[in-house]
Amino acid sequence: MTEGKLRRRKRGELELIAMIRERALRQGRGKSTILRLGIGDDCAVLRPLPGEDLVVTTDLSLERVHFRRDWHPPESAGHRCLARGLSDVAAMGARPQAAFLSLAVPRELSGRWVERFLDGFMLLAERHGVPLAGGDTAESPSLAEKPGSGLVTADILLLGSVPSGKALLRSGARAGDILYVTGELGGAAAELRRIRDLHHERPSAKIKVGKGPHPHFYPDPRLAVGRELVRRGMATAAIDLSDGLSTDLGHLCEESRLSALVRLQALPIAPQATLEEALHGGEDYELLFTAPPAAAVPATLGGVQVRAIGSMKRRNSRRPIEMLTEDGRRIPLERHGWEHFRSSGKG
Amino acid sequence: MTEGKLRRRKRGELELIAMIRERALRQGRGKSTILRLGIGDDCAVLRPLPGEDLVVTTDLSLERVHFRRDWHPPESAGHRCLARGLSDVAAMGARPQAAFLSLAVPRELSGRWVERFLDGFMLLAERHGVPLAGGDTAESPSLAEKPGSGLVTADILLLGSVPSGKALLRSGARAGDILYVTGELGGAAAELRRIRDLHHERPSAKIKVGKGPHPHFYPDPRLAVGRELVRRGMATAAIDLSDGLSTDLGHLCEESRLSALVRLQALPIAPQATLEEALHGGEDYELLFTAPPAAAVPATLGGVQVRAIGSMKRRNSRRPIEMLTEDGRRIPLERHGWEHFRSSGKG
Repeated sequence: MTEGKLRRRKRGELELIAMIRERALRQGRGKSTILRLGIGDDCAVLRPLPGEDLVVTTDLSLERVHFRRDWHPPESAGHRCLARGLSDVAAMGARPQAAFLSLAVPRELSGRWVERFLDGFMLLAERHGVPLAGGDTAESPSLAEKPGSGLVTADILLLGSVPSGKALLRSGARAGDILYVTGELGGAAAELRRIRDLHHERPSAKIKVGKGPHPHFYPDPRLAVGRELVRRGMATAAIDLSDGLSTDLGHLCEESRLSALVRLQALPIAPQATLEEALHGGEDYELLFTAPPAAAVPATLGGVQVRAIGSMKRRNSRRPIEMLTEDGRRIPLERHGWEHFRSSGKG
Repeated sequence: MTEGKLRRRKRGELELIAMIRERALRQGRGKSTILRLGIGDDCAVLRPLPGEDLVVTTDLSLERVHFRRDWHPPESAGHRCLARGLSDVAAMGARPQAAFLSLAVPRELSGRWVERFLDGFMLLAERHGVPLAGGDTAESPSLAEKPGSGLVTADILLLGSVPSGKALLRSGARAGDILYVTGELGGAAAELRRIRDLHHERPSAKIKVGKGPHPHFYPDPRLAVGRELVRRGMATAAIDLSDGLSTDLGHLCEESRLSALVRLQALPIAPQATLEEALHGGEDYELLFTAPPAAAVPATLGGVQVRAIGSMKRRNSRRPIEMLTEDGRRIPLERHGWEHFRSSGKG
């Protein structure tokens, strides 16, 4: 009995490995200039180019925390998993060179779900030329002896390259620098709100994702913007907006030991979004960066709109971030984090 | 209510991040020659040395699959998580340069458990001079109706360096090469069997881990052996024994397109282990490697015993691996995989 279970289990894992390996082989090295050996040995092998630094990031994507199987098409879960890592690479101004995926799925989950997860993952990987170079697989255990309660867990690792010493850090901003943001804010949170409302009205509703932009389901990491900033050498600091403007600007201020003033009327709020969503909604995956006042920052970078939304000030620990309203008042911007599905799903 | 839960949740995650960051800062860069920027930005930054390749590996450690909270002291879970990655780096003959840990823990789990997990992790990291350079944290979800059912999930990423073109691959063995193994086989499986038996007799028994070697609880990845093999340029192929000799030798044969003959009486079987455990027991984390017959492979490498256990043969697809018994018979060695706790725990 145990033996039988064990064999089935191993077979499931072997199938998963074979599925991922086949996709990786079909894709090849993409545009990677440094990947020498991908899936199939104890480690992948990379040969860095002289004059380049490497950047490395990992991001967890947990079912019921970062996505829900009843809300997100598998393609969206796969896309979002990779997008989280790519956005960190974009924030450093780097070029993605290799992705590694650690994936645990419950035994009960159909191979079709995993195939579709990989479809979403690989489509985004191919768009940015980043090869799937390795990873790990396992079968997620069921929770508390309840069959079918296992959850999907994915961890994405991204490795990118950037000219030596040119990576964009959170810590490089100076007092007087102008604060810029790409694209629009709050779009992902607004789309998530619509999904939640729909689910609230009709809990069994099947979520349909049509054509057109989907900032929540299919965010577009700003890799071209990050690389342009490095090429032009104009940014002093950068961070990606994964946790929301109020939180991520807070990180940038802390690491640069500065305060910030944001002009409320300058914020590029997404069409369907509220001001709250633009300020605190996470997962927009836009870039927030600073540049000296003399820098000629263009209105678009890499095809994406860029807006000046404020400026960096000397550190004032009592008022780390302030907003300037249209009528000239200054109000503090409090941090509010990103909402997780699990909590919000109960609301 | 939802807001309250959300805030608690965020606090838990922030505490976890602070805990890991504090440990990483206390440790510094260890012996890493390439880490430039660790935890605290969107990515870590590394500056590879000219003439070196990088190797990258990721390994999942899931509660109830790779460890059990009721069997493993938290220090052992942390040690084993890192050891899995270090062993892959050892198998490439590389020097570990940076570790990244993605860790999801249930809200109910005490900070003390996580502290002790990190104690075990960091002690091994410091022994090998590898800095904790980044990672991610999250709170593992529980079953809605069953609080406390969340599970610990860890994903370890290791990055190592090796002189360019010198990484030990699985695919480099040639017919006629001698097959070597380090240390002893089956020790980890034998220790696991003793734990299982104890648990079977007294399910509530507290597992005590005393002084002395513990091949299951505290395996010792063979980094010094791997580096010595590269330095001496004597190995043609290598793999680590994570899934057991029969499975991992199978991988080496496949990637090198060869068969193998193993001399049964030459196997270094650990004192408490059965032949089955030596052949199929996983997680010994010894190295299996090949070298030409003319190579002067010493009896110990990096302080660890090295034994010639057989040789590589031209590919015979019907008999990929054979064992030569003391009385001269040749019997096929079937692959049997690694036993997972979940299945075995039910047995």
